[in-house]
Amino acid sequence: MPKFVDHEKKKEILAEATWRIIRKEGIERATVRNIAEEAGISTGSMRHYFSTQSELFAFAMKLVSDRVRERVQNIAFTGKPFEDAQTVLLELLPLDEERSAEMEVWIAFNIKALSDPDLQALSSQFYEEMMLGITHIIDTFIKVGLAKPTIHREEEIEILYALIDGLAWHSIMQPERVSPEILKNTVFHHLKNLCQ
Amino acid sequence: MPKFVDHEKKKEILAEATWRIIRKEGIERATVRNIAEEAGISTGSMRHYFSTQSELFAFAMKLVSDRVRERVQNIAFTGKPFEDAQTVLLELLPLDEERSAEMEVWIAFNIKALSDPDLQALSSQFYEEMMLGITHIIDTFIKVGLAKPTIHREEEIEILYALIDGLAWHSIMQPERVSPEILKNTVFHHLKNLCQ
Repeated sequence: MPKFVDHEKKKEILAEATWRIIRKEGIERATVRNIAEEAGISTGSMRHYFSTQSELFAFAMKLVSDRVRERVQNIAFTGKPFEDAQTVLLELLPLDEERSAEMEVWIAFNIKALSDPDLQALSSQFYEEMMLGITHIIDTFIKVGLAKPTIHREEEIEILYALIDGLAWHSIMQPERVSPEILKNTVFHHLKNLCQ
Repeated sequence: MPKFVDHEKKKEILAEATWRIIRKEGIERATVRNIAEEAGISTGSMRHYFSTQSELFAFAMKLVSDRVRERVQNIAFTGKPFEDAQTVLLELLPLDEERSAEMEVWIAFNIKALSDPDLQALSSQFYEEMMLGITHIIDTFIKVGLAKPTIHREEEIEILYALIDGLAWHSIMQPERVSPEILKNTVFHHLKNLCQ
């Protein structure tokens, strides 16, 4: 079905144009007109792909989470809990240009979500999935006996998840201070702290 | 100088109108026209207080950090390092409606700062101050012998700071899940983890 594929591909191209505008000029400049211009199509043609700006935003936001999911699903796990936990967590951090771009627009969409219920639903869904992933890491550490016997499971889940999003946020806001090396080192030390 | 006082007070009223618009409708709707309407003054009168929207945004962003600074400076410290650390850190978290509002607009301004150098400077300055505060907490824990002798100072500073901002972010995005009780409990447990 090449027509369908082309249509989906074109929607992704428009979503990526939305990301670029958000990064360069801020979400307030991500109007249908500016996005069409960035993507090199007419404003009228936009209607073939999205009926409203809100629909385009929801698609563009979902595309960010889909990319992250896809990368996590493609991880070649080693079966070693400590190494695998590190690999998953680092995949969630803006360690390169591609992931920094995603994180920046993800945060912008999340802020927008505070006044847009459709985006809010996407935000909550991703939050839940992340929470499950983080819970799995802590539970595996406990199950295989890596974790200190004194740790508090619930609290360590909250701490680890907040740590990852806090690091991501700092790295976006202060990229010169919070380098990829600092991100990796901080995650490593926190995981080490959990272990006996 | 009542005239001067009135002028400054009016600027704060306009800044707070800016916050309300950002929270209700998103930063893209925080135009000079909408802010004037929210504050109940004419668009023309806005020029007496701010020459550009950018100047108004910088003032409104700085007012958020000033409020946080003021609250931290007004803390009645007990001299007990663990309790005082808890008090300072909880002051940085959105535990009530006022602080949630501040945090929401703070995040929105920070995202805007990625494409606005004046706001970026305010963001960096506050980041530095926060980093000093967090460093002071960890150093005090080490100095008074509260901290485990095995902790890594630099890493624990990064972890604690990222934890606080990550929790703040989660609480704004998922207020029903990340309640004030979870925030307090998570901070308490993390500080406990640092101690011997």
